[in-house]
Amino acid sequence: MKEAILNHDTDYIKDLARKQAEEGADYLDVNVATGQDWEQEVKDMEWIVQEVQSVVEKPLSIDTADYRVMEAGLKVHQGQPILNSASAEPGRQDPMLELAAKYDGRVVVLPVQENIPETAAERLKLCESLFKKAQEYKIDSEKLYFDALVLPLSVNHKNPSITLETIRLIKEQQWQTTVGLSNVSYGLPNRGILNRSFLNSAMTMGLDSVFLNPLHKGTMAAFLATQAILGRDQMCMNYLKAYREGKFS
Amino acid sequence: MKEAILNHDTDYIKDLARKQAEEGADYLDVNVATGQDWEQEVKDMEWIVQEVQSVVEKPLSIDTADYRVMEAGLKVHQGQPILNSASAEPGRQDPMLELAAKYDGRVVVLPVQENIPETAAERLKLCESLFKKAQEYKIDSEKLYFDALVLPLSVNHKNPSITLETIRLIKEQQWQTTVGLSNVSYGLPNRGILNRSFLNSAMTMGLDSVFLNPLHKGTMAAFLATQAILGRDQMCMNYLKAYREGKFS
Repeated sequence: MKEAILNHDTDYIKDLARKQAEEGADYLDVNVATGQDWEQEVKDMEWIVQEVQSVVEKPLSIDTADYRVMEAGLKVHQGQPILNSASAEPGRQDPMLELAAKYDGRVVVLPVQENIPETAAERLKLCESLFKKAQEYKIDSEKLYFDALVLPLSVNHKNPSITLETIRLIKEQQWQTTVGLSNVSYGLPNRGILNRSFLNSAMTMGLDSVFLNPLHKGTMAAFLATQAILGRDQMCMNYLKAYREGKFS
Repeated sequence: MKEAILNHDTDYIKDLARKQAEEGADYLDVNVATGQDWEQEVKDMEWIVQEVQSVVEKPLSIDTADYRVMEAGLKVHQGQPILNSASAEPGRQDPMLELAAKYDGRVVVLPVQENIPETAAERLKLCESLFKKAQEYKIDSEKLYFDALVLPLSVNHKNPSITLETIRLIKEQQWQTTVGLSNVSYGLPNRGILNRSFLNSAMTMGLDSVFLNPLHKGTMAAFLATQAILGRDQMCMNYLKAYREGKFS
């Protein structure tokens, strides 16, 4: 992907976008961080948003920590975007929330200030502070997706359970949650089964949305099965449809 | 298995018992219901308990609704058995709890009276009544495993979520829970993925024990991955050991 961005390989990008949309992604995440300067990232973001939306009728999640790159993407984006993401860090709080309000986007909110808080209670505290900040910008709570923060299981075997507890605490506030899935299995063998187990546990705790690779067949199959198990698939229609389409084989 | 019991096929039974023990079962469940009369079941239970324990050093879960068959198994059993199961039905409540007390066994308790209650709240109510009854027999609460009752997803798409809610309510009482796994996917294609998803969700809700087929490789792999995700596998040692032994392939 990095190479495709550096070379502006439009065909590669469009092909990937088409595939992800076909597999059922509601939003496609676009990220142009390649280690170049921010002016180049601004140009790349403008380019990629337009190229992707020229082939798929999906809104995008504009994924950058730089509000200038964010606005470049928002300016050319069609539909309601996701801003991915705001945090409690100085340069990433007010500017991002201001953009979310200005462009009427949904926004992923990271409970991160100087460090990633180690406990669920500390993460909730930062969520509360960010929630208040978002209210100042008149951003409706339905637009906010609090990221429960996924750190690798390989670094600390309590990491996934801290994230699950964070989801529980955020849901107690009736707020919406999200996570980036794949980080959980970083550094371990046979990552798919850990990703699937974590997705299932997080959904069981009330997860509302997730960043994942929709081309990972096993992950999507686990998602469908878990939706059915959690009572969200009337008459198992989605499960049975996916089965007939060979999505479990 | 039915045929093996009818023919007293000792080799088949012993081989299966060995394999289940090797795959990590803590208890082996023995059930001799073949549609014959209870006197025959009494003989079969005496036989199977002794045959199984002649090849594996594991305690057994003696699985019958008839207290006479239960006692026949208990009399010849070595170690601390599980009585599987008592319920709130007249013939299956006092006689079974009396046997659990007499033989100092663990006991699976079904919140079932005339019918299977449809809601989690009704199931909890029967659990409470059974808990009190068990106290009358001086059975320690640590010996009780409340079965949250698994009904097929194919019959009602809310069935698994009712079971998950039942687990949550029982855990609020600080009591121990169990389920029989495979019933959840009855009547649906590709049952393995549904069993795994349900096991994962139930463990996330606090499930303490489970009846499953330890020869189903995918189920055991999901169990190990979920233990790791829930923070119960220090340094991922069990996960990595299982990986090295090829349990995920």
